[in-house]
Amino acid sequence: MQVFNSRNAFYKTPFGAVKQNTNIDFSIALDRRDIHPSLSIQKENNDIQKLAMKFKKQENGKFIFTVSFVPLETGLYFYCFDLGDNGYGVYNAGKGEGKIAKNGGKFQLTVYDKNFTTPEQAKGKVFYQIFPDRFYEGNKKSTLYFSDRIYRENKDEEPFFYPSTQPDGYLNKDYFGGDLKGIADKLDYLEELGFRYIYLNPIFEAHSNHRYNTANYMKIDPDLGTLEDFHNLCEKAHKRNMRIILDGVFSHTGSDSIYFNKEGRYTSNGAFNHLDSPYRKWYDFSSKYECGYRAWWGFDTLPEVNENEPDYINFICAENGVIDYWLSQGADGFRLDVADELPDDFIDKIRIAIKKHGDDKLLIGEVWEDATNKISYNKRRRYLLGSGLDSTMNYPFRTAILNFLTGTSGHNFCEDIFTIYENYPKEALDVAMNSLSTHDTPRAITALCGEDPYGTNRYWQSNRLLSADNYEKAKKLIVCGFALLFTLPGVPCIYYGDEIGMQGYRDPFNRGYFKWWNMDRYILDNVKHISAIRNNNHIFAKGNLYFIYASDECISYVRYSDNHKYEVLTAVNRGNTPVEIKHRDKIYKVNPLSYIIEPIFE
Amino acid sequence: MQVFNSRNAFYKTPFGAVKQNTNIDFSIALDRRDIHPSLSIQKENNDIQKLAMKFKKQENGKFIFTVSFVPLETGLYFYCFDLGDNGYGVYNAGKGEGKIAKNGGKFQLTVYDKNFTTPEQAKGKVFYQIFPDRFYEGNKKSTLYFSDRIYRENKDEEPFFYPSTQPDGYLNKDYFGGDLKGIADKLDYLEELGFRYIYLNPIFEAHSNHRYNTANYMKIDPDLGTLEDFHNLCEKAHKRNMRIILDGVFSHTGSDSIYFNKEGRYTSNGAFNHLDSPYRKWYDFSSKYECGYRAWWGFDTLPEVNENEPDYINFICAENGVIDYWLSQGADGFRLDVADELPDDFIDKIRIAIKKHGDDKLLIGEVWEDATNKISYNKRRRYLLGSGLDSTMNYPFRTAILNFLTGTSGHNFCEDIFTIYENYPKEALDVAMNSLSTHDTPRAITALCGEDPYGTNRYWQSNRLLSADNYEKAKKLIVCGFALLFTLPGVPCIYYGDEIGMQGYRDPFNRGYFKWWNMDRYILDNVKHISAIRNNNHIFAKGNLYFIYASDECISYVRYSDNHKYEVLTAVNRGNTPVEIKHRDKIYKVNPLSYIIEPIFE
Repeated sequence: MQVFNSRNAFYKTPFGAVKQNTNIDFSIALDRRDIHPSLSIQKENNDIQKLAMKFKKQENGKFIFTVSFVPLETGLYFYCFDLGDNGYGVYNAGKGEGKIAKNGGKFQLTVYDKNFTTPEQAKGKVFYQIFPDRFYEGNKKSTLYFSDRIYRENKDEEPFFYPSTQPDGYLNKDYFGGDLKGIADKLDYLEELGFRYIYLNPIFEAHSNHRYNTANYMKIDPDLGTLEDFHNLCEKAHKRNMRIILDGVFSHTGSDSIYFNKEGRYTSNGAFNHLDSPYRKWYDFSSKYECGYRAWWGFDTLPEVNENEPDYINFICAENGVIDYWLSQGADGFRLDVADELPDDFIDKIRIAIKKHGDDKLLIGEVWEDATNKISYNKRRRYLLGSGLDSTMNYPFRTAILNFLTGTSGHNFCEDIFTIYENYPKEALDVAMNSLSTHDTPRAITALCGEDPYGTNRYWQSNRLLSADNYEKAKKLIVCGFALLFTLPGVPCIYYGDEIGMQGYRDPFNRGYFKWWNMDRYILDNVKHISAIRNNNHIFAKGNLYFIYASDECISYVRYSDNHKYEVLTAVNRGNTPVEIKHRDKIYKVNPLSYIIEPIFE
Repeated sequence: MQVFNSRNAFYKTPFGAVKQNTNIDFSIALDRRDIHPSLSIQKENNDIQKLAMKFKKQENGKFIFTVSFVPLETGLYFYCFDLGDNGYGVYNAGKGEGKIAKNGGKFQLTVYDKNFTTPEQAKGKVFYQIFPDRFYEGNKKSTLYFSDRIYRENKDEEPFFYPSTQPDGYLNKDYFGGDLKGIADKLDYLEELGFRYIYLNPIFEAHSNHRYNTANYMKIDPDLGTLEDFHNLCEKAHKRNMRIILDGVFSHTGSDSIYFNKEGRYTSNGAFNHLDSPYRKWYDFSSKYECGYRAWWGFDTLPEVNENEPDYINFICAENGVIDYWLSQGADGFRLDVADELPDDFIDKIRIAIKKHGDDKLLIGEVWEDATNKISYNKRRRYLLGSGLDSTMNYPFRTAILNFLTGTSGHNFCEDIFTIYENYPKEALDVAMNSLSTHDTPRAITALCGEDPYGTNRYWQSNRLLSADNYEKAKKLIVCGFALLFTLPGVPCIYYGDEIGMQGYRDPFNRGYFKWWNMDRYILDNVKHISAIRNNNHIFAKGNLYFIYASDECISYVRYSDNHKYEVLTAVNRGNTPVEIKHRDKIYKVNPLSYIIEPIFE
């Protein structure tokens, strides 16, 4: 019997993060009765509170002490148990079996706003991420709208890369002609796969193929289509009960934007060349910067904006501002690029602008770590406490899944998943966007079986493809990865092309044109199968999670309803020998390199 | 009492990897006597051997069973304990407390060649890595030898980066003029710091500032100096008992080499344009490659060579070949670039060529993971079993140190260090090259405290510098890192400039010119101090290791002699509160963000 286990209802109820004003009961199990233990708990930056624990009962030869605590404010709390000076000292998270100590060895308690809710409509759904230039060319082009762009006729070629055989300066300047009409044309395909939310990488006018250097927030990039094309896409999607999420890049603009206009591409009164530009105060001009202005990570092509500047805040968040405008035009939410670089106050205002259009509108942030205890620029962030994001791109789940499938022990997988499960507010967890790949990572199939002479990811920028042997193994593993992704808490999001076996190391090789002519049926059929299971089982929307099995090579968990009447069991075996898992008197056999997903009715 | 712990002499002797023909005693501790346990051990790709274990004694209420095993062949063995069908099943590494299960849950036993030895001269020494173009300009230049190179007059500027304010095509074409004479000029500086081995990044003629695209293996790059400069450097170094290690890049050449000569830079009969070129068979020309030949990770500027081609093997390994020539000219060993891409047979031949010049000549390989169980291209590698490398660049130690100092628990640190300590042959371990930074990683000080909006290392290519606050913390942490690096098993290697506080994210920002005008005295003085301790304590050459303390934020270990008469204790506290460590009835106080290194005589 352990002294304490924050994940076990015997020791702590309720489980995990709590709303403010919730009563929490803590129990610990000690070997002796003649000591005076206390709960030592501290809201971050406040004083430590010491709450004496009372002896409650004797059980299994242990002495059980308990105490209740009600956190009144939202925030992060850290706690441990002071067992007195009788040789016990302090019991903290570092002493919890199997648990990795973080936060100075203390247990984390996330306390969030009692009114925090996230869109019910999104829970349980399947998402799909599209890099717009590379999905499908709906309007066949011969030239592009902007003459300094390079049109790629042959869709089977790979994107330009520097250094490479291509001339210098072509990086991110080549366009394959994918467009909004192309996405609308393919809604049948997406619907058949059970995808209900489409997250689009940026679609506003911008002079690179990824469009993260926004040139005009109020205009669809002409090579992607017109405002009418956007209306049409949204309308068609909504008719199928599908939704469109846009990418909001609000930490910087392009230097060649109508706002900055450094290169004089536009006729506007840009901030760079005009002291009296209406946009001048958005930016931070100073000789202390090498290029004369604050730029994103030092890139002079990406001037940073000041998100505390009221004029800029209004431009994004006010009535008829960027958010308001695009939601009025049909969008169903935003994903915020580099949320770490946006002040919490600014994110709060974005939330208000979004929710003005309805509680069903979604706000996801790009955060790469556990967002509940993320520190950026020496400040603890409050992304998920209720006033900011609905949730984040859940990269920690991606890491956990890929680590497990590439050889890390199943025990670590449980630990990594449960850490997020325990720390995240339930509202945020249920709409956490879980991906195996994104436009910022190698494609999953490559990450799973790609040869990498620098195992630690030094050299992920390459055009290498998997060997035939490795591909055979990789396609089994990626399907196992999807089985996990689709059944863990949160919403799975497939990066376009992953479902047909597209390969690629990092940018730009992870951004090839969708290979409509070469789709891997094995992966696609499995995705369709898993997606159907998910869409047909409401348990995936909000079900609880517990692990029933973990070995080095195999894990299994169930999602279950509060009343335990209904469960869905998932198991994945990444090893070479079959595994038998016993659950509720039934034996489940999991074959090598495969998964099972089984509903269980009581 | 555990069932088994491979790291505890009660359960297994001798500790760790063994030479072939060594008798190994295994013991397990069980709760019952009426079972028939066996050791299940398998040399990889051979049959499983089952060895019955005998009951030996009862101790602490447990029943101890033992068995001996003598591995006759070198290779990797994996083992677990079969405890019979009485509800015990198999006891494997996944069940070991705190240990992370790998290798299908089995314990690894590394068995190496009984004649494996590595250079005694290198053990206990301190290494220093120099990127030659960026250390010191000994011969002041106004122009460079090759006219297509860009000379950087102002040494305080950062290297060119693409995309950036610099014109396209400048990446890796800018030279700061560092040269061999510059290194020779600075031997006083290096000697004063106690550095005894200098590992040089490539110095042979090559048309980029990193020189990994070799153009002529037999010639010093003219902008670095002449053969005479090389002789002079070696001679001066040897007089001070210092040694010079070269970088051998043998998996590919430059496309603009005298061997391939694609661009016609040389008058030679290069393989690309001449079917009758003597070098034609080195390369693999085929239409199945996009550029017409096999190239390193698809880069057409780096044609790969075939290391099974006898003519190429002779060129590198035979009498008067590349290895033989440079060791004759004064070099003391080689570091093999991308060892994962070189066949084991080829590495074996390189070893023979090197050792022909004496057992003291060193052969280190670039391997990023645990080299004892590394699989590359679906083949288990035998780098460290005796016939190949002396040792590797020990990146796993770097990862463990940086992880701990940036917040991972001290328990994980112990685990990560001990895994390598247990798996590596002692001979290899004692010359493992331990670095906090290299030319292929962000600089340690940046990795420790750099702001990274993409915590998972997506965006390490930036010219950002630390904020003043972060720098203050970072310099304390890097000094703690050096304390670990200099006292763990293996040889520490400082990447030039780390000892003076140079910052930088990845290539090219980690390759700035050495800031002779701006040296951080705090870091430098600490390095000098730690280096002196190391050089004055022979225990660091071959001493054993055990951990005496681990908490979330603090760890401590001792290096000790076989007879336990002499120990050196190291402790590092990365946290904000002082820690007291008890060892041999003495209390050692470790202050926040600091280290202690204390010799202990019995």
